[in-house]
Amino acid sequence: DSKLKIFSLSSNPKLAEEIANKVGVPLGKSSVTHFSDGEIQISIEESIRGCHVYIVQSTCGPVNSNLMELLIMIDALKRASAATINIVMPYYGYARQDRKARSREPITAKLVADLIEKAGATRAIMIDLHAPQIQGFFDMPIDHLTGVPLLSEHFKNTIDTSNVVVVSPDHGGVTRARKMADKLKAPIAIIDKRRPRPNVAEVMNIVGHVEGATCILVDDIIDTAGTITLAAQALLDSGAKEVYACCTHPVLSGPAIERISNSNIKEMVVTNTIVLTEDKQCDKITQISVGELLGEAILRVHENRSVSDLFE
Amino acid sequence: DSKLKIFSLSSNPKLAEEIANKVGVPLGKSSVTHFSDGEIQISIEESIRGCHVYIVQSTCGPVNSNLMELLIMIDALKRASAATINIVMPYYGYARQDRKARSREPITAKLVADLIEKAGATRAIMIDLHAPQIQGFFDMPIDHLTGVPLLSEHFKNTIDTSNVVVVSPDHGGVTRARKMADKLKAPIAIIDKRRPRPNVAEVMNIVGHVEGATCILVDDIIDTAGTITLAAQALLDSGAKEVYACCTHPVLSGPAIERISNSNIKEMVVTNTIVLTEDKQCDKITQISVGELLGEAILRVHENRSVSDLFE
Ligand SMILES: Nc1ncnc2c1ncn2[C@@H]1O[C@H](COP(=O)(O)O)[C@@H](O)[C@H]1O
Ligand SMILES: Nc1ncnc2c1ncn2[C@@H]1O[C@H](COP(=O)(O)O)[C@@H](O)[C@H]1O
Repeated sequence: DSKLKIFSLSSNPKLAEEIANKVGVPLGKSSVTHFSDGEIQISIEESIRGCHVYIVQSTCGPVNSNLMELLIMIDALKRASAATINIVMPYYGYARQDRKARSREPITAKLVADLIEKAGATRAIMIDLHAPQIQGFFDMPIDHLTGVPLLSEHFKNTIDTSNVVVVSPDHGGVTRARKMADKLKAPIAIIDKRRPRPNVAEVMNIVGHVEGATCILVDDIIDTAGTITLAAQALLDSGAKEVYACCTHPVLSGPAIERISNSNIKEMVVTNTIVLTEDKQCDKITQISVGELLGEAILRVHENRSVSDLFE
Repeated sequence: DSKLKIFSLSSNPKLAEEIANKVGVPLGKSSVTHFSDGEIQISIEESIRGCHVYIVQSTCGPVNSNLMELLIMIDALKRASAATINIVMPYYGYARQDRKARSREPITAKLVADLIEKAGATRAIMIDLHAPQIQGFFDMPIDHLTGVPLLSEHFKNTIDTSNVVVVSPDHGGVTRARKMADKLKAPIAIIDKRRPRPNVAEVMNIVGHVEGATCILVDDIIDTAGTITLAAQALLDSGAKEVYACCTHPVLSGPAIERISNSNIKEMVVTNTIVLTEDKQCDKITQISVGELLGEAILRVHENRSVSDLFE
């Protein structure tokens, strides 16, 4: 369809190419440059009047400039008379600031939602939001996909899954672990972190049976990799045979790579919602692509077909 | 008044101190830090419930992170029940992207206004906006001040102004030059840039009489300093005795400092709406403070007194 256009911004150009290939259109011509003082300049180099435009951009680091690129692009498309402005946001930055945990905290995840809608976006496609409640921060329709089936498929194709236990590294991730366990026809276990007294190190108890099992830890985001590497050790200490880990969003900041390299995790499987830059390379990490998933979602959204099975 | 609170963000902490001194309140306790992945974390460390809060932040470089700090702070104050959220924005980043000059350009200055209002600001105090029309991008009240009297005063106190001609470096700045000329009781001249044919260098004609005069070039922003240093040369070529330059906002990016150092400009006077970091130091530059001006404006706004003479 000539009226569907896909544009890439700076965060994931290669993923955007894969998406465009799946959809069967060339990527739209545009460029992001900077003025001498660092302000972002965006040029859209083809007419988009009356078109249904999809912008591919994760708000991973550098988070503020990636977000601002997205907002400026939305503004430009709106003023250039796009019919609809659909943002494809594989990773949603600031998602962890999604509630006031202490007095006078901002709720930056809601702020980001407000900014995107105010700029003029009309729909969004996202993957594995840190909290599904973030969908409710928007008034526009959100198509929320999951990378869990892709991760599950990878394990099915590469390891013996007959003896697998899927493990959630915290209470918040049990639903995700259950989803992966269903795909792998496996039981689940939960890491139950608790601090016995204030100023005493946390203890990781394991709820469930992991002795002799191949454990797969699953999370949405792996950031500094502190929790996941400690969880892996706790599983081995409890008699697990081997530990794999996986997540949708490899933020991998600070000491993450060092921790993963030095850990007893056998392999960590992640997707490409966030690009693994030079400083995030590690032999233990395998990256799989969400390009086909996002391309399929765009095709269905464009043709008004349901995407609900892409969140299962 | 105990209900007036002033908070500083990262861009101008020293200016914020000066403002707080003038107003006669201590700066509010808050901190801006970053999570491991670079996301901004803001903590407000005292109650602001029911208070009239003023946030001091320029959106100079790093523009996207300074803007995001401001938006997150506004969000946090709003959720912490501030009575009013007044932003004191000595420099307004993205102001030059204030219209569609070409097809499919964004109007980022309007986008920024929308983001600030959407976040929850209720009033703003600004200085020498690149275009006064930017006030109209907001629905909330804007108090628009000018640094021109401070710059004029500096010249009155430091040089013989009996033989001065105030010069606008382009057509857009004539009103500003007229304002300074009134203060100095001096005539004006205008640099009339024009490109005789395409692909031929611009010619700088001077409209007005500058022979034997002490010229003061005045602009709102000096960024790469290309225009201002060429204008200074053109004035000297036309027989000016000496050339001073001044502006409110010293952006000074890219080759600016080198150009100013190597130029025939005798002294460049700027204000502290933008901090002159290490890489922006230069013997020829004198910096004067807008701290008292902003403090005075805050006091008057807080007491519902007119600030109109602060824009004259
Ligand atoms: N970028 C970030 N990195 C680390 N922690 C964060 C970040 N953003 C927010 N947080 C904190 O993480 C907590 C939420 O994490 P969670 O319990 O996993 O949903 C909040 O209390 C935030 O203060
Ligand atoms: N940060 C910037 N640095 C240099 N030029 C800019 C910047 N932002 C916008 N512009 C351009 O400057 C022009 C407006 O400048 P002016 O004519 O001085 O108002 C616009 O056409 C913009 O494309």
